[in-house]
Parts: sequence; structure tokens; C-alpha cells
Amino acid sequence: MFEYFEAYMTSYGELTKDELKYMRSLATVKRIRRRQLLLKEGEVSRHKVFVVKGLLRTYRLKDDGSEYILRFTPENSWSVVHESYNNQIPSKYNIDALEDTDVIMWTREDFDQIMTAIPVIRAFSDRLKENNYDASQERIMMNISYTAEEKYENFITSFPEIFKRVPLHMVASYLGVSRETLTRVRQARFRQQKDNSIG
Amino acid sequence: MFEYFEAYMTSYGELTKDELKYMRSLATVKRIRRRQLLLKEGEVSRHKVFVVKGLLRTYRLKDDGSEYILRFTPENSWSVVHESYNNQIPSKYNIDALEDTDVIMWTREDFDQIMTAIPVIRAFSDRLKENNYDASQERIMMNISYTAEEKYENFITSFPEIFKRVPLHMVASYLGVSRETLTRVRQARFRQQKDNSIG
Repeated sequence: MFEYFEAYMTSYGELTKDELKYMRSLATVKRIRRRQLLLKEGEVSRHKVFVVKGLLRTYRLKDDGSEYILRFTPENSWSVVHESYNNQIPSKYNIDALEDTDVIMWTREDFDQIMTAIPVIRAFSDRLKENNYDASQERIMMNISYTAEEKYENFITSFPEIFKRVPLHMVASYLGVSRETLTRVRQARFRQQKDNSIG
Repeated sequence: MFEYFEAYMTSYGELTKDELKYMRSLATVKRIRRRQLLLKEGEVSRHKVFVVKGLLRTYRLKDDGSEYILRFTPENSWSVVHESYNNQIPSKYNIDALEDTDVIMWTREDFDQIMTAIPVIRAFSDRLKENNYDASQERIMMNISYTAEEKYENFITSFPEIFKRVPLHMVASYLGVSRETLTRVRQARFRQQKDNSIG
């Protein structure tokens, strides 16, 4: 399974065979079955998780049982509850698998050692953090400034593959739009596409 | 003016006199009058800005002229458009002053040198970034999961000082709630407080 990670990393920077061997020696692989939890709210996020195959979801439950989705993590991306991982405090989020999912994981201690030993990984990790922060700022702006229609369009354009793989109510939970509103938006969009194709 | 920055930094870590002198030698001070822009959308965010006194606002204009507020930056905090500063690309945001504001600024080149020369500043800066990222994640969660009432309550509790200093329509722009909704929320809250005090 580690060869998937090798292929992924190669597209970002050159690692020597020894460096890859070192990373592999510290890695654990795991399969999370669909609907199974990888992390439960209240537990500490102890691992840096790379998704090889499948789809993870990071979400929070409100007291009334409703779910709010912080992030979808498909193959070739990373899943970690940053605040919990970074400070080793209980997570406010759950992570579960929306599909059978294969991951490669490193403990925080090991990943810190890897970053010290391999400058390419340190630089890569820093870069990823910067990008994640910028993406968060953009998402905040979308949250506060976009209409439900714009949010929906943006999701389809930004994450076409995820859109195909998750039910509409999860898209609604990610966007912070009610399921009813999103259904209405989608129906209006269908109608418009139909009208356009007639016109 | 630099003594305000010294007092601020002292609460986070010990800097030697030489280190402070070095930082001071690279710093520029500036006064931004109320309603004046510090950064205009399309310009590059070239400075790390520390607010000594006053209040800055980072915001974006939509095509229809409506404003959406990413951040309020009062005294003793930092203002930078991260994506623009980090990649030296045009900013998608404006920064203006909501009050007459005094700032201390460093160019990115100088601040990078400072971080290399002073490990305390590097650690402090890293810590700040981590906290900002966590705060962003929390804000996304609030955006998508809170009712307008909860958003309003949370703002008052989290930023009581800013709440006193900005008009309600800016709170609405920050929360992504319409002005009409926020006015209704506020009125309902007044009524409830009144009922409680009678009861």
C-alpha cells in the first residue's frame, strides 16, 4: 500500500530511497470499513492520516443530533483534527468512513521526527498548512457572502468527484444550507438546464 | 510607539535588549486615519502589521457593492492578508481603519530575517498561525451550524470590546447574517431580557 504514498509524494518533491524506507518503517496501515469511526469526539487525534483509497468525513454532532461536516477527505489527501493533534487535547470532531477506506498513519511523535529528519517533508507539510489556512479563509468568505445557489455551484465545481460520491444531505451539512433549500436549488438548476437545452 | 510592542511581546516570551533593538531598527510606524485604506484589493500585502491602537477591518466587496468582513483587528493583534503576504500575489481583500489607527509594520523580507535571527519570534509566529488556523475551523463550524441567534450571542461573548465599537451592520457582515435578521434577533433579545427582569 505504501507505493501509493510514494507515488503521491514523488509529485511534490524528491525523496531518496532511504528517506522513503524510513517513513515506511514508521507507518501503520489500516482499513476503516464504511460507517466505522476512525476518531470519536473526545478522543485525542494522535495520527497524521494519509488516505490511499476511500473517503473520510470529519464532522461534529450538535445536541439535537444534526451533523455538520468540516471536511471530506478522499484518496491522496490528509486527515487530521488539527487542534487536537497539535495540542494533544480531546477532539471536538468525529472522523468516519463514507466508503471502505485504506489509510497510512504515523503517530505525531514519529511524524515530528520524520519532519526533522527529512527537510522535503517539513517543507511539504508547511506548504500544506499554509494552503489549508488560505482555503479556510476562502471557505469563511463563501459561508458569509454566497447565496445557497452560489454555494452549491461552487461545491460542484470545486469537488466534482466528491459530489458524485456523497448524498445531497451531506453536501447541505458541509455548506451550512438546509436540506430543503438545497433540494430547491437543485430543482431550479435542473429546470434551468432543461430550459436552456430547449431554448 | 515601539514600547507598546515591547510590552505585548514580553507577555509571550523573553526578548533580549539587542533583539528588541534589532526589531525596532527594521520597523516602520504609520497612522491610518479612520476610513482610510491600508491595503486595497489587487495590491500585494507586503507588510506584517501590528496594531498598537485603533481598529482595522479586513473585508471583501461583492460585485453588488455589499461588504463581507473577514476580520476585525484591534490593538495588540496582527493584520495580514495571509495568502497575498505569503505568496506575494494580489490581495482579494481590502484593509481599512474603522478608527484612527496606529500600526507598526515590517516588510516580509525583514520579518523573515527577524524570524531567522530570533527563535522566540519564530516560535511565537508559528504558534499564532496554529491558533489562527484553529480559530478558522471553529468559525467555519459556527457559520454552518449556528442559528442567527447563536452567532450573535457568540460574537458578543467572544468579542465584547469590538461589539461596542462597530455598528450592527458590520457585525452582520462578519457573521454572514442579513442586517434585517440581526436587527430582529437583537430586538427579540432585548424583549427577553426585559421579560426576565420583570419576571
